[in-house]
Amino acid sequence: MAEKSVFKYTIEPESVDFTSRASVSSMFNLVLHAAGKDAHRRGFGIDALAENDYGWVLSRMCMELDRMPNEYENFTLHTWIGGYNRLISTRNFTLTDNEGNEFGRAVSHWCMLDFKTRMPLDMNTLAKVHDGTIVDAPSPCDGPKRLAAVDSEVAETHRVAYSDIDFNRHMNTMRYIDFAFDALPIEIPENLKAVRVDLNFMKEALYGDTLSLLHKEEESRHCFEFRNDAGESLCRMALEIK
Amino acid sequence: MAEKSVFKYTIEPESVDFTSRASVSSMFNLVLHAAGKDAHRRGFGIDALAENDYGWVLSRMCMELDRMPNEYENFTLHTWIGGYNRLISTRNFTLTDNEGNEFGRAVSHWCMLDFKTRMPLDMNTLAKVHDGTIVDAPSPCDGPKRLAAVDSEVAETHRVAYSDIDFNRHMNTMRYIDFAFDALPIEIPENLKAVRVDLNFMKEALYGDTLSLLHKEEESRHCFEFRNDAGESLCRMALEIK
Repeated sequence: MAEKSVFKYTIEPESVDFTSRASVSSMFNLVLHAAGKDAHRRGFGIDALAENDYGWVLSRMCMELDRMPNEYENFTLHTWIGGYNRLISTRNFTLTDNEGNEFGRAVSHWCMLDFKTRMPLDMNTLAKVHDGTIVDAPSPCDGPKRLAAVDSEVAETHRVAYSDIDFNRHMNTMRYIDFAFDALPIEIPENLKAVRVDLNFMKEALYGDTLSLLHKEEESRHCFEFRNDAGESLCRMALEIK
Repeated sequence: MAEKSVFKYTIEPESVDFTSRASVSSMFNLVLHAAGKDAHRRGFGIDALAENDYGWVLSRMCMELDRMPNEYENFTLHTWIGGYNRLISTRNFTLTDNEGNEFGRAVSHWCMLDFKTRMPLDMNTLAKVHDGTIVDAPSPCDGPKRLAAVDSEVAETHRVAYSDIDFNRHMNTMRYIDFAFDALPIEIPENLKAVRVDLNFMKEALYGDTLSLLHKEEESRHCFEFRNDAGESLCRMALEIK
């Protein structure tokens, strides 16, 4: 049985927003950084998969933060693969402060994509990827929710530009979160105490695409949907402010 | 006489663009990170100045990169205060690869601002800030150029949003560079070999401002200017592609 992987992080100045606390998107950045590094160390990172023109694609993810950590604060991140089925591999995360208190947790679902066909691969045919890496520990919170379509007017539009794209030439996860927060009244990040974010990725946003952002508020929950020029749903996000 | 400060950096995945090499804006981020950290360690960082409601403001900066470093590449950064006059403190930087070859250099001019009055402070009255920190070494390249107004049509507009602002509630340096690159054909960052960037900051871009970006190409030089709603010039940038 494998052990959880441990990473140490510091909230650097580039990770904080105007409140001098980490932004939600930079917390996703750190967590995804750990996911990439752990997969790399265990031999199934994007570098190893690229040899077969395969890659990991984030399908769904949720994160709960009981508070937003401060600039220069240190924390410990634990991450582990909790299991997998034919199409989805589940990676879990916990975030613990210097006093040993867990203040955050996340669950992510990943597909393996064949970039030649752009189709998902059956994980069982590649089960050796996960050999000896599964940790028999439950997910630290409810897994990512399946989010419904957002029925509202278009709040913002954005053309996907150079600074939005990653090595796959598609818009990265953090930029979706940034654009959603940009569409909110600034008092929301200013007064943010605890939050749960759910993300569903359906289709890539590619360089040059014009995105429409739809936003609907339901009680203490903000629902977002990004669509492309063809009206296809690319990404949905729900933000529960606690 | 003081010694140059030394920092070690790695080009992490979040610093690279779709070419898997560091983006220009992330190189500015690393260099400015070192500036902040060095000032902090030497006792004149923004944290120490904040006690008097003073702060450092970047006035002009240039950076030359002979090549764009690759993902996971390590490099060594040297930084030192080269001198100061009544209004400007000059901080220099060199970037050296693992073989000891200098592949980048930068010069930055900083003002000290009194946030109560928003006016610059006379550095001589605060000369003790620099006591024992000046390194008697020349700047590694020509200092930042004074850039002329850009006479062209508006290429893009952008409303300054939550994800653009820092703890001062103004748009940060990296976002200006991102927006300038976003306005260029993607083949320019794709094929970028060597570059010199000059930046002049005149006025802050504040949350909610609508910025106009003017762009003019002159031979191998791209000139940019950001203006606010009132038509005031906020920032000028020149990009020389070598």
